[in-house]
Amino acid sequence: MNLHRSIAARSGGFLLFAVTPPRLTTSPSEATEIGRVTLERLRPLAIDGLVLYDIDDESDRNPDERPFPFLPTMDPADYLDRDLAQLKVPAIVYRAVGKYREDRFRAWLEEQDPSEALTVFVGSSSREKVVLTSLARAYELRDQIQPELLLGGVAIAERHARLGDEHLRLIAKQTMGCSFFVTQIVYDVNAAKNLVSDYHHECAVQNLAPVPIVFSFSVCGSLKTLKFLQWLGVTVPRWIENELRHADDTLDASYEQAVATAVDLIAFCRRLGAPFGLNVESVSIRKAEIEASVRLATRLGAELRR
Amino acid sequence: MNLHRSIAARSGGFLLFAVTPPRLTTSPSEATEIGRVTLERLRPLAIDGLVLYDIDDESDRNPDERPFPFLPTMDPADYLDRDLAQLKVPAIVYRAVGKYREDRFRAWLEEQDPSEALTVFVGSSSREKVVLTSLARAYELRDQIQPELLLGGVAIAERHARLGDEHLRLIAKQTMGCSFFVTQIVYDVNAAKNLVSDYHHECAVQNLAPVPIVFSFSVCGSLKTLKFLQWLGVTVPRWIENELRHADDTLDASYEQAVATAVDLIAFCRRLGAPFGLNVESVSIRKAEIEASVRLATRLGAELRR
Repeated sequence: MNLHRSIAARSGGFLLFAVTPPRLTTSPSEATEIGRVTLERLRPLAIDGLVLYDIDDESDRNPDERPFPFLPTMDPADYLDRDLAQLKVPAIVYRAVGKYREDRFRAWLEEQDPSEALTVFVGSSSREKVVLTSLARAYELRDQIQPELLLGGVAIAERHARLGDEHLRLIAKQTMGCSFFVTQIVYDVNAAKNLVSDYHHECAVQNLAPVPIVFSFSVCGSLKTLKFLQWLGVTVPRWIENELRHADDTLDASYEQAVATAVDLIAFCRRLGAPFGLNVESVSIRKAEIEASVRLATRLGAELRR
Repeated sequence: MNLHRSIAARSGGFLLFAVTPPRLTTSPSEATEIGRVTLERLRPLAIDGLVLYDIDDESDRNPDERPFPFLPTMDPADYLDRDLAQLKVPAIVYRAVGKYREDRFRAWLEEQDPSEALTVFVGSSSREKVVLTSLARAYELRDQIQPELLLGGVAIAERHARLGDEHLRLIAKQTMGCSFFVTQIVYDVNAAKNLVSDYHHECAVQNLAPVPIVFSFSVCGSLKTLKFLQWLGVTVPRWIENELRHADDTLDASYEQAVATAVDLIAFCRRLGAPFGLNVESVSIRKAEIEASVRLATRLGAELRR
């Protein structure tokens, strides 16, 4: 599986793993060690790409108290260059574009080698936020400077449930250069199916070839992580919340939950003929949760090859 | 399987089939013929009970135009007595209690043999409606006159999605004498799981034994039937609506859909340890849809025996 070819051909079928860069306060030697451990963990996994999130302070998106404090993280592009040089698969570097002044954003774009790099641009988390580069401007710049750089967008099934137009947003982003989409963490399989179904049928109406939608999954080892997922905007159906609350082992129950959801979505997309990929991330930094994420990726990789 | 014992023991596992009585304008000989054909259709099916709906004009519940005109139907108790005498399984006669004057309702209650009959009381479809007997009064009367008569209530997962308290309504109805519940037609498996999960955990908190929840299923042979389901208040997820709209054979697609939903719910309830039953109905009077309903009941019966 070659990630670039699979996206360009709109065939999907790939597996990604996502990590968050170390905290900004991490020393260079510690960051190097974190990078080394991360690559070692990922080595046995047949992933097709590594996602590097670009964390922004999103406390403005939600008036509720953030279950975990916001701690600024290293720039994912810097972390990749310095500490993940041994990575054997393409990296997909997220860019929270509003954080960057245009000159800095341009400079980063110019450095990219489109035969290796991929990126996902993320807009701001609320209208109130000060934005140094808008998402629309970021799309323009990439179109001018790096039109060959594979670009992804975020797809939010929860917004589709609320507003019903996320499939149209995806198509608009597609015309602005996106050739794949990555969802938030999926706990509500119904909402994910609604989005991919509406997107698929709207593409048919507009005579567009649908691009791969990458569904993200994560385990959840504690009720605090569950609260954090909900704070991030992930819809967790009541019955899953009840199951996690009453489970003897929350982490195990959430692993089984994620597998069942992914298997359901894989079957759904295959039946529909919709290209898709899978992405596994760990939202927690607890070792048990990270290890369960790696197990989840192994398992989902096997499901993809079925 | 004995329906009375299974409900009394709160074990569930039974299969029901539901029919609507013939229109009020049907001649006695036509009604007899409809009853004969119905029983003949049901004979090969190993159902444990026959549900007879009591149709009320619900045009006040929804300002939108009713996709099919409202046509008053025969009283289900009269239809049972006159035309379904050869029925070999218990009948569950619905009572839209608001339609009946108290004396008439009392008289019907007094006639019932609790070793044979079962009933489900349904309240009015809107607050504006003129109500001859309230649901609360109907519960009182049954408690006074026929405390042994097995009584069911309706369970509406869609209301739970909106208000979040349907599980508490079920428990309140349980204290008023309900020993089973029947849902609306389930297309949104997530909403059904949320309800049964919340009900199950609330019963545990209140130290109550949960009673069987009977999930209703129906095929849908046309987009008009789909519209009617939605008019009745059934939530049909977008992806299922899309699937039915784009299917080569809507009836077939809805049959597969209903089987998948039921299989998912059966596994969920078994895992949870929640007693349940299944109910298959035909919302249409088209022959192809009725026959597909019979096939669906056959299939779901096999799933129950697995």
